[in-house]
Amino acid sequence: MSEKNFDTVVAHMKNSGFVFQGSEIYGGLSNTWDFGPIGIELKNNIKNAWWKKFIQEDPNNVGIQSAILMNPEVWVASGHVGGFSDPLMDCKKCKSRFRADQLIENFSNGEENPSGWSKEQMKSYIDDNKIACPNCGAHDFTDIREFNLMFKTFQGVVEDSKNTIYLRPETAQGMFVNFKNVQRTMRKKLPFGIGQIGKSFRNEITPGNFIFRTREFEQMEMEFFVKPGEDLKWYEYYKEFCMNFLVSIGINRDNLRLREHDQEELSHYSKGTCDIEYKYSFAKAQWGELWGIADRTDFDLKAHQDASKKSLEYQDPQTNEKYIPYCIEPAVGVERMMLAVMCDAYEVEELENDTRTVLHLHPYIAPYKACVLPLRKELVEESKEIFAQLAGDFTITYDEAGSIGKRYRRQDEIGTPFCITYDFDSRDDKCVTVRDRDTMDQTRVKITELNDFIKEKVKF
Amino acid sequence: MSEKNFDTVVAHMKNSGFVFQGSEIYGGLSNTWDFGPIGIELKNNIKNAWWKKFIQEDPNNVGIQSAILMNPEVWVASGHVGGFSDPLMDCKKCKSRFRADQLIENFSNGEENPSGWSKEQMKSYIDDNKIACPNCGAHDFTDIREFNLMFKTFQGVVEDSKNTIYLRPETAQGMFVNFKNVQRTMRKKLPFGIGQIGKSFRNEITPGNFIFRTREFEQMEMEFFVKPGEDLKWYEYYKEFCMNFLVSIGINRDNLRLREHDQEELSHYSKGTCDIEYKYSFAKAQWGELWGIADRTDFDLKAHQDASKKSLEYQDPQTNEKYIPYCIEPAVGVERMMLAVMCDAYEVEELENDTRTVLHLHPYIAPYKACVLPLRKELVEESKEIFAQLAGDFTITYDEAGSIGKRYRRQDEIGTPFCITYDFDSRDDKCVTVRDRDTMDQTRVKITELNDFIKEKVKF
Repeated sequence: MSEKNFDTVVAHMKNSGFVFQGSEIYGGLSNTWDFGPIGIELKNNIKNAWWKKFIQEDPNNVGIQSAILMNPEVWVASGHVGGFSDPLMDCKKCKSRFRADQLIENFSNGEENPSGWSKEQMKSYIDDNKIACPNCGAHDFTDIREFNLMFKTFQGVVEDSKNTIYLRPETAQGMFVNFKNVQRTMRKKLPFGIGQIGKSFRNEITPGNFIFRTREFEQMEMEFFVKPGEDLKWYEYYKEFCMNFLVSIGINRDNLRLREHDQEELSHYSKGTCDIEYKYSFAKAQWGELWGIADRTDFDLKAHQDASKKSLEYQDPQTNEKYIPYCIEPAVGVERMMLAVMCDAYEVEELENDTRTVLHLHPYIAPYKACVLPLRKELVEESKEIFAQLAGDFTITYDEAGSIGKRYRRQDEIGTPFCITYDFDSRDDKCVTVRDRDTMDQTRVKITELNDFIKEKVKF
Repeated sequence: MSEKNFDTVVAHMKNSGFVFQGSEIYGGLSNTWDFGPIGIELKNNIKNAWWKKFIQEDPNNVGIQSAILMNPEVWVASGHVGGFSDPLMDCKKCKSRFRADQLIENFSNGEENPSGWSKEQMKSYIDDNKIACPNCGAHDFTDIREFNLMFKTFQGVVEDSKNTIYLRPETAQGMFVNFKNVQRTMRKKLPFGIGQIGKSFRNEITPGNFIFRTREFEQMEMEFFVKPGEDLKWYEYYKEFCMNFLVSIGINRDNLRLREHDQEELSHYSKGTCDIEYKYSFAKAQWGELWGIADRTDFDLKAHQDASKKSLEYQDPQTNEKYIPYCIEPAVGVERMMLAVMCDAYEVEELENDTRTVLHLHPYIAPYKACVLPLRKELVEESKEIFAQLAGDFTITYDEAGSIGKRYRRQDEIGTPFCITYDFDSRDDKCVTVRDRDTMDQTRVKITELNDFIKEKVKF
């Protein structure tokens, strides 16, 4: 997908009910996005796919939903109050504000990865290479200072530091602080995972690339707890599991790559961290981070045990030995996955005398599984019966406006795998024409067998 | 359900993996709750049930997901910046803080409903009746002042009023500001509805009754737009639809009532508002609000059209007449519905020589559809195959610890409708014993027919 095509995909998502600018009638609110009727169905299907594979089908794993507002001590213990910040610098001349690491990344065309660098290292690099202000061209930056990315708010009637709480910047801590509660009530033995889907908030200085980096976003995170020593085995397991998941929802393996963090980039506590990257092809960077998988050892549980003074040890039922489990964390953003899925599925296809825009979405994650079309106005009533017959089992849509050809195109554009036309013959033969989005082949299917026909096709 | 039983249900939810105190290892954070592995499944099923009936099965309606963070002008136009507040007063003697309306409600044992009263009316009532401070018994209150319930935060690097934004106090405005975007991209004709499920936040002074009133909560709201003049018909339609929905997910009709707001309580713009109340039986009040249904006329769209200067008119395709649609809003909290469902399903049943705690949950919303049990350790492998066979279609669980009787009880307590035991005969006859939660009857079912058997039972 060329750079141009990323913009095309974005334009397509904005125009066809996937994504709207947030608060658009008020001129928007910087970098917020609303998901329209088509977009929310796609998003829900992606979340359901994750939940199915990570929670439902795995007897080891369970889900939770922890609150967005947590006791602020959680964020002290996790290191977010002290260290969750962006390196910020201002151009003294035009007063524009930049992230030092991004200046370096863009300047080096992605050759440099400053995420593990100190402030001093970044400052020297910028000075040595005389990186110019992207806005005014001057080379006159302030020193780098750390800007904490957590959104603050106040609970209760007084706005002071005593009442300051944060919007969570990640869902992960919800799993760590509930480790014991879950283990006890579910009588879980290692290895077991706790997963969660939910909103997180980061007051990013330079969000961007559409829904790739937003201040408000949704995460799908899992903390998989294992016996120390078995961690690297499970780290490998989840790297492969996540990669397979992406392929199983329809992403082309060639557009995915796995990038291991080198020693410099690795957090001090991590025994291994990698990113699954997708070839988004936006702006200068070809590849963008999609999924992070990390062996976080016992860092998080230990930090919470130390800070809360509550034991987070696990007692091994075989050996009676007590220890703090290690933890493997696959963490992915819903919107990033959605964007990867869209980039991958989007195609402008040359036909014999025509072109069509089509989304080759996996039927399971397609917003609508089918669209019911009456061939003519006289057939509306019967077509609505077909809608009712299917709508109990699947999210489908209905369209009676325009020629059949035009209606097919509209469904191609939003990735609907099947168009079901009710015509005059249907009255006699009790069949409908089912047209396949990808092959454009048409088959005649008995109305009584329609639900099973679709059920078979959307299996995941 | 007696008062005692409300507390019993709460205790049960806390002890069996439904709900944990938020940030519990840090002593909690006032009035936040986390949903455990059992609770999140129940919650997701309730949300899915709502989405199925309000969005999926109704060709008129579509869903969206709007951002929690919106342009602050939205909340000026909606009236929340000016008027979304609680009437607060302090006891001058002990410095305790109270909501004036709640003081009156409690004092009058629910006989008075001060929600439509002015500050002056409330103050006089408190003075006239010499209502005492519930904490110290004094009668020496400050004047009533309005406290805005929206959580504030700051977007960007500077914390000043220019950057002040709010956590949304309701999801509804997300539908109103997207009215045109949705109508246009989905080519919708009146009547049509836009629905959303998502988190909202209210900085309540006196939250309470467990998950009944929390600062962070999840809403399921729909804005159903209609031609003016057809609004009262649709208001009636949705009153009945919501009531039927509650009965269809298993709530006893006798524990529900519909309370129309009288003229005094009604907002100036509303042509009709009612609450569906459930008999929660907590504290002094028997009944608690569960679902609000309102005919909001054109108040919201008009307010946004005036403030944004963007036309929110609809052009009637028949008459070409332009007008602002009227709107019917059924709005319900997920946690309140969950609590009603739990109160209704909970039973301590006297058996011949025993008692059991059982949740008579509708199979569709039960956290687990089934539990797979090996009769003996030697049958673990085959039982896990049964688990794998079912887990692709349903959320189920697995239990191998303790006697079969004990394992049945554990599943009764979390509302699992079916226990599936794999025994030694299963090897030969390829059948399993399926035990029904409510009747405790056992039937022998072919393993190959197990998925269809459960599918039939969980239909909704």
